[in-house]
Amino acid sequence: MFERVALLGIGLINSSIARLLKRDNLAGEIVISSRRQETLDRAIELGLAERAEIDAAAAVEGADFIVLGAPVGANAAIAETIGPSLKPGAIVSDVGSVKGAVISDITPHLPDGVHLVPAHPVAGTEFSGPDAGFAELFENSWCILTPPEGCDTKALEKVTDFWCHAGSMVDVMDAAHHDKVMAIISHLPHLLAYNIVGTVKDIELLTDRDVVKYAAGGFRDFTRIAASDPVMWRDIFLKNQDAVLEMLGRFSEDLAALQRAIRWGDGEKLEELFTRTRAIRSDLIAAKKV
Amino acid sequence: MFERVALLGIGLINSSIARLLKRDNLAGEIVISSRRQETLDRAIELGLAERAEIDAAAAVEGADFIVLGAPVGANAAIAETIGPSLKPGAIVSDVGSVKGAVISDITPHLPDGVHLVPAHPVAGTEFSGPDAGFAELFENSWCILTPPEGCDTKALEKVTDFWCHAGSMVDVMDAAHHDKVMAIISHLPHLLAYNIVGTVKDIELLTDRDVVKYAAGGFRDFTRIAASDPVMWRDIFLKNQDAVLEMLGRFSEDLAALQRAIRWGDGEKLEELFTRTRAIRSDLIAAKKV
Repeated sequence: MFERVALLGIGLINSSIARLLKRDNLAGEIVISSRRQETLDRAIELGLAERAEIDAAAAVEGADFIVLGAPVGANAAIAETIGPSLKPGAIVSDVGSVKGAVISDITPHLPDGVHLVPAHPVAGTEFSGPDAGFAELFENSWCILTPPEGCDTKALEKVTDFWCHAGSMVDVMDAAHHDKVMAIISHLPHLLAYNIVGTVKDIELLTDRDVVKYAAGGFRDFTRIAASDPVMWRDIFLKNQDAVLEMLGRFSEDLAALQRAIRWGDGEKLEELFTRTRAIRSDLIAAKKV
Repeated sequence: MFERVALLGIGLINSSIARLLKRDNLAGEIVISSRRQETLDRAIELGLAERAEIDAAAAVEGADFIVLGAPVGANAAIAETIGPSLKPGAIVSDVGSVKGAVISDITPHLPDGVHLVPAHPVAGTEFSGPDAGFAELFENSWCILTPPEGCDTKALEKVTDFWCHAGSMVDVMDAAHHDKVMAIISHLPHLLAYNIVGTVKDIELLTDRDVVKYAAGGFRDFTRIAASDPVMWRDIFLKNQDAVLEMLGRFSEDLAALQRAIRWGDGEKLEELFTRTRAIRSDLIAAKKV
């Protein structure tokens, strides 16, 4: 499928891509790059690539498919570094959870004839690093492509083919729409999980031991989400600031109304909401998503 | 262990207790009561009890162990109904998630010589009803007992023995402390989950289909929690109002600070929190709680 693939960053997602490329023999050669030599050493030890380069520009030389897999805040600098070394006709893609900023950060640094096809595989675990990946990570999950205006059709097709091959269902949408949808359905849940775990840690009547003891009561799921990669999530909130703040505003309004219902003992309002939210679970179960 | 056990309410928890009593032959007879005849019919069909009574007073006659398993808002009325029929020496317990209100709602209706030992098994699933229970539900989870002042030692011992037998670790604490701990570690997470699922349902740019498609990005866990029994949770928030409002206040303060950090691009603050919250997950993993 590809002659030479360059994976910039070799964490959970890119190391899963590497395993998939290897398993199905989809790339003539895989070259990886990462900021840290020890990460590269480990990835080579795991057999994820033929070659590792600290210098991202050296890694992309001659590559026909380049996947940016570093935290989204690093994209602008990486694009600037690799821009001059990109081969004409190469496809540059990424796996970030924010798409508007990816387009605006990368586009200015790409030479003519290089095609940007941003991608967001909606899949993951709370683990990170090259050891965390597995080839099946993308199966039965959605991958959203947000091609910029005038995107090369052949390049878009090729990236679509790759994600279909990975077992994903592919959706194409506008980057701004993607960012709003993800702000509410992914970024805000992470923010709430991080926040409540932080609040709990600060409460003086609770020891860490108490928290561990009673986590079954609902808290456990939040700790899993709040164990996600800190730098990756820092960048997501900074790069999807507007949409996250908008959705957080809506959430906070609704929460204030709920707080008022509790204070005034409005059981009807509580029960109405709690009944309404139950329905979506049935939809997920029907769609075999749980 | 018991001659006759009366289970008032036969949902997830009490039907799990019934199965446990049956499995290990711990009760001479099990009598159940519920507001709805169809629930009782189903429970008898499942073999959960020898006898079913719509009238709770009839169900508790001659019972030496009574477990209140209806939503906590129903306790005062149930206690008033059963009070005159309770046998001297009987132990009244419950399985509710709020303990202060349980004590103040039930105590006035108990005749002398009947012992109240409130219990909260910190275990559950998002399913409800007599079909949802299973005898192993309580294994390796904590059960918190909150005996009121002057509680009969023998009665406390007996309830402790029962929960140990169920496979739980038993903790004894003050009801007010319990309610604060649960407000932050269980009730608030549920409130946030209900609230965000509600916010998502209201967002006009998202179809239900979109939500189902992209739920993997963090939202899925929230939908599970927000599928919990609506009436049970309505009552929890109404009956643990003060502690929930206090913890919600702290949470909202922290969230406002986080919102400010996002608006002003304070990446350092975000990363610091996200790193701190990751640690608690390691504690849970070390304690084999996940």
